[in-house]
Amino acid sequence: MSALMMHSFKLGLSGSRQHSTVRTAPRCLPARSRGSVRRSCRSTTRHVVTMSANRQWILRNRPDGDIKKTDLELVETPIPAIEDGQVLCKNMYISIDPTHRIWMSDAPQYMPCVELGEIMRAVSIAVVEDSKFDGLAKGDIVSGIGGCQDYFVADGATLNKADPSLPPPEQLGPYSMIIGLTAFYGTTKICAPKAGETFVVSGAAGAVGSMAGQLAKMAGARVIGTVGSQEKADWLTKELGFDGVINYKTDDVAAKLKELAPDGVDCYFDNTAGPVLEEVLLQFNNNGRIALCGLINQYNTDKIGVKNYDMILMRRLTVQGFICIDQLASMGEMLEVVKKGIADGKIKYKLDIQKGLESYIDVVNMLYNGSNQGKLMIEV
Amino acid sequence: MSALMMHSFKLGLSGSRQHSTVRTAPRCLPARSRGSVRRSCRSTTRHVVTMSANRQWILRNRPDGDIKKTDLELVETPIPAIEDGQVLCKNMYISIDPTHRIWMSDAPQYMPCVELGEIMRAVSIAVVEDSKFDGLAKGDIVSGIGGCQDYFVADGATLNKADPSLPPPEQLGPYSMIIGLTAFYGTTKICAPKAGETFVVSGAAGAVGSMAGQLAKMAGARVIGTVGSQEKADWLTKELGFDGVINYKTDDVAAKLKELAPDGVDCYFDNTAGPVLEEVLLQFNNNGRIALCGLINQYNTDKIGVKNYDMILMRRLTVQGFICIDQLASMGEMLEVVKKGIADGKIKYKLDIQKGLESYIDVVNMLYNGSNQGKLMIEV
Repeated sequence: MSALMMHSFKLGLSGSRQHSTVRTAPRCLPARSRGSVRRSCRSTTRHVVTMSANRQWILRNRPDGDIKKTDLELVETPIPAIEDGQVLCKNMYISIDPTHRIWMSDAPQYMPCVELGEIMRAVSIAVVEDSKFDGLAKGDIVSGIGGCQDYFVADGATLNKADPSLPPPEQLGPYSMIIGLTAFYGTTKICAPKAGETFVVSGAAGAVGSMAGQLAKMAGARVIGTVGSQEKADWLTKELGFDGVINYKTDDVAAKLKELAPDGVDCYFDNTAGPVLEEVLLQFNNNGRIALCGLINQYNTDKIGVKNYDMILMRRLTVQGFICIDQLASMGEMLEVVKKGIADGKIKYKLDIQKGLESYIDVVNMLYNGSNQGKLMIEV
Repeated sequence: MSALMMHSFKLGLSGSRQHSTVRTAPRCLPARSRGSVRRSCRSTTRHVVTMSANRQWILRNRPDGDIKKTDLELVETPIPAIEDGQVLCKNMYISIDPTHRIWMSDAPQYMPCVELGEIMRAVSIAVVEDSKFDGLAKGDIVSGIGGCQDYFVADGATLNKADPSLPPPEQLGPYSMIIGLTAFYGTTKICAPKAGETFVVSGAAGAVGSMAGQLAKMAGARVIGTVGSQEKADWLTKELGFDGVINYKTDDVAAKLKELAPDGVDCYFDNTAGPVLEEVLLQFNNNGRIALCGLINQYNTDKIGVKNYDMILMRRLTVQGFICIDQLASMGEMLEVVKKGIADGKIKYKLDIQKGLESYIDVVNMLYNGSNQGKLMIEV
């Protein structure tokens, strides 16, 4: 068993799973911000991991509105054996992303939905426990779609060997396809803000939104974010250098946007849709660009229409929906820009590492009530 | 006075203004279709044109829903004198376009709205009556924003000298910025259909829609149009070579679209928004393109939200709103393609020429009740 696995198991057995850690600086790069927050996670289920048991979250019902405890079930199954070409992996960190709510539904979506009775899908960073695949050996760190479970078996060819120079949690965060590539592609390839233009991002304190805003700052744009709390607003303006923040819960969004963007909006990186989108549409300049990355405002509610769609015509806007998995060709370019941005202190980020696979339902719901602080993941 | 002007005045005085003509083939190019329809125009106001009077349609109220007789007033004013650099023009044909309804409202839009008390804006083909501008002489045919009136004065530099090889009405139709360039830019530059892809166009029997569909056919796409009558459907499939037509008034749009586009939709040229857009969004393939050209479904109603906006993300769609006046750089390329298309019989079109400036309100409303047949204009 590798040192990393030992570490992981020790954590698992020590009872520390009921705590979370918000990391604001990488372990292997210069720290720019030292704040940290600890918060209890209201998990009620406890399991002890043994080498013979694999805990798996199984989707039992399609959520109606918020995800409820009865929508998924945590079951124990034997750890599977592997065949030639396969690898047995133990999940270290599971990425918790807004798209989980999409995958749980059977609405039309960009990947197959998770079927009832299946293991809940999730991207993860894992350590190789056993390998019958030539390119991977016990102890290697890999990323893949490991699912919400302790162990998984995968064809070796479907796994990516992680970059050993970067800490594993950061590889689900700023350097990941889901966070880094999404922010990079939407900001630099779709919005492509020019110096002096105004760039608005919704869900701005999220892992993707905060990086998008910082990438737009690096391009010379005036950056405005929308958030749901004063704490998030302060982080963006005082630590990340955003030019302005709108608290959609307390501000008059229309008036505040006019005040912060007196010359109109040129780019909008949209994580939410909903009322913020509708207001931004009204204040767009001609030839504006919208990178549509997420619809978190709409996931847990009945689908309602988007008003002011006509402004796409009136202001000659381009709206492009995109999914990071289509843009892997830009991964190398992203890594170069993001590594440099972090090293130069121009990109800061937070990791919100919750503990314990059993806390999954509580943790995933943090995304939709806005209580996470930075890139959310579970340390298994 | 030029021969053309004499002709125009004779029409004006002969009482022929109460008739309309649908032209289905150009005068100076090989005719492909010889059908013609005459229809009475229900104008109730009659005026006799004299050289000393200029009839002008003045916007009095912003329409609430349909355009009513009381929303505009036809007044007579003296014909203005011109100063150095100016040109006096007599309108020959006034282009009647869906955007008139936008211009009458004070909603945010792509040009300034027409203010109350101002002459209603319109693009026109006119003949020069008097010139104090070096580049234009009496008798020249020009295009510009002549307004809904008999005469207008313009700075010579703002007028385009018309191509003398093309008949004037066609220069408001297939060869125009409003029709030809809109169809060309949206189809070939935004949708860019590849051979074998499926291209859907709404408002398909309209001047822009029918040309967009034919340009997509020339690119090798499978073309499906939505229309509001069997007569329009027949024209598209039997004369224009469309692969299928959906009558949104009588068909189940979702079922018919599935039947006609079993492999999904790749491109959508949207003239209407509304329920057709919402259905097409659900049946898009990944990486589809929407050229948003018009919103005729929404002009005369309260703005309602567009449902299924989330499919822009799920199917990685690009929606681009565009206005022809921004795309003049493509005018030469469009003319080349469209002239050849018409000469080769691959592009057919109809002109719906209504007679008499006084019929403006009846004529413009034809656009919104779908009763026009081809590019609508008024022969002044």
